[in-house]
Amino acid sequence: MTLKEVASFILQHNNFDILTHNYPDGDCIGSAFALAHALKQIGKNARVITTDRQKKFGFIFERYEEPKFSTECVISTDVADEKLLGKNRKIYEGKIDLCIDHHGTNVIKAPHKYVEADSAAAGEIIYELIPLLNAEYTKDIADCIYTAISTDTGCFRYTNTTSRTMRIAADLIDLGCDNGYINKVMFETKSKPRIELERKILENMIFCADNKCAIIYTTREMTDGLGDDETEGIASIPRQIEGVKMGITVREKENDYKISVRTNNGVDASAFCRQFGGGGHVAASGCTLKGDLKSVLETLKTAAEETL
Amino acid sequence: MTLKEVASFILQHNNFDILTHNYPDGDCIGSAFALAHALKQIGKNARVITTDRQKKFGFIFERYEEPKFSTECVISTDVADEKLLGKNRKIYEGKIDLCIDHHGTNVIKAPHKYVEADSAAAGEIIYELIPLLNAEYTKDIADCIYTAISTDTGCFRYTNTTSRTMRIAADLIDLGCDNGYINKVMFETKSKPRIELERKILENMIFCADNKCAIIYTTREMTDGLGDDETEGIASIPRQIEGVKMGITVREKENDYKISVRTNNGVDASAFCRQFGGGGHVAASGCTLKGDLKSVLETLKTAAEETL
Repeated sequence: MTLKEVASFILQHNNFDILTHNYPDGDCIGSAFALAHALKQIGKNARVITTDRQKKFGFIFERYEEPKFSTECVISTDVADEKLLGKNRKIYEGKIDLCIDHHGTNVIKAPHKYVEADSAAAGEIIYELIPLLNAEYTKDIADCIYTAISTDTGCFRYTNTTSRTMRIAADLIDLGCDNGYINKVMFETKSKPRIELERKILENMIFCADNKCAIIYTTREMTDGLGDDETEGIASIPRQIEGVKMGITVREKENDYKISVRTNNGVDASAFCRQFGGGGHVAASGCTLKGDLKSVLETLKTAAEETL
Repeated sequence: MTLKEVASFILQHNNFDILTHNYPDGDCIGSAFALAHALKQIGKNARVITTDRQKKFGFIFERYEEPKFSTECVISTDVADEKLLGKNRKIYEGKIDLCIDHHGTNVIKAPHKYVEADSAAAGEIIYELIPLLNAEYTKDIADCIYTAISTDTGCFRYTNTTSRTMRIAADLIDLGCDNGYINKVMFETKSKPRIELERKILENMIFCADNKCAIIYTTREMTDGLGDDETEGIASIPRQIEGVKMGITVREKENDYKISVRTNNGVDASAFCRQFGGGGHVAASGCTLKGDLKSVLETLKTAAEETL
């Protein structure tokens, strides 16, 4: 299916539900609302279906007035698997008419599907789609797409950022998007509980294997009452430290400990996790351990010292 | 002076010293070495004069082989004031032939001067200058300029980032620059002492004025033995916290305390600092206080509670 065919398919319908994945991030929120704005502009009806609405995306939610209508066509944006629809899965499973995504691993079986795995964000696809729908770029659309692209690239820091990503962002700035505001909200604002959590994490950080391994942990007490947006990204803390080749994050869950391993310089995180029944990618893997915190930490320390 | 005239002036000379400012950052290092590479390519001799060479810029230093020659022409890049030449000031004061900069506040009195205040980085100017010198962009040049631009924009996060900035970065990516590596080194790597410092800072953070003010402090003991690159940027920590309108950083110096105030939402940092004999900008100001740490913190808390 070409992007032109995606546009033709959309133009044949009028009333759209646009689905996002659970724990919605900037890319699915930004992509879905940009598309909704564009559809409204060309006389269609559209609503965005989310599992929850994080405060930081408030400037997106409050600028889109949802029309009343009966659903005729279901589109998903940035959703790689129907399992990720969260609480909306029971309503929409098997009902996606058009799937638009940038995950090469997408497993959704939809009659119409457009996956562009080399796009840094689904927002890049929506950016290209809008003129094919004969819609105009507006400031609201630019803000949505900038949010989508900047969040999925870590503000243009990650290696998924391409020259196309940068050129689209340039166009969005020319369209008047509030890049300064969006960057501040997405990348420079931390909640007080998050800062407290980081403080506690750094307080208890353990170095081993000649400082080539750093281990951090969170107990249930430390994360009690914190939302997912307040605990996200902590696994990237230990690997950031100069000289650290393996960063391990231990999270106490209900009955066990969830371990995330991030590595630099080709150290195999997947092999490390396989010895505990886990796995994943070379640079990012995970496993689960049972026991008390002290023994879990000792097990990981010993294994790290053997690996490094 | 137009950029074409800058190029003509350079083309009339052969042997260049290129000056950077003290505590050299990515913009002056990247700009100076990009220019040096371009000059070498067109058959000129050039060396870059720095006060020190931070390890994180190693990939730039090691790829430029300095030729031997006698200086004939002195160019400064990204230097707003001769005072900022540091230990090189006594050699070069009054000897700058061509000043290339992007600081609107530039006070250098050079016979040839090109200041473009709407450039996010001096690197943007060098990018435009290179073809005017009939030099070709190479991967080494692209890496230097990407370093210059990404560091001065906080990886495209700050409000000085324009659509031109993004388009230049897109071109640099197309030229094969190692944006992923550079971003990792510049923005994701923290030294162990820096992490330790952050931990101690967060441990001692003080909230006041109904959590609208956050105060952090460093004692001489905490920063003992740390380089400037390890303590830079800490003043941005307290303002990042959600709901904080005024972030105060207290640094113990030899005989007094250096206070940095950063504010959000129009709270006047300058007025705040003026009551202690300091001043600056609305969102970023500073002052100096004497006394013991406890009384300095009490004074600031009381003043913050009155202001907010």
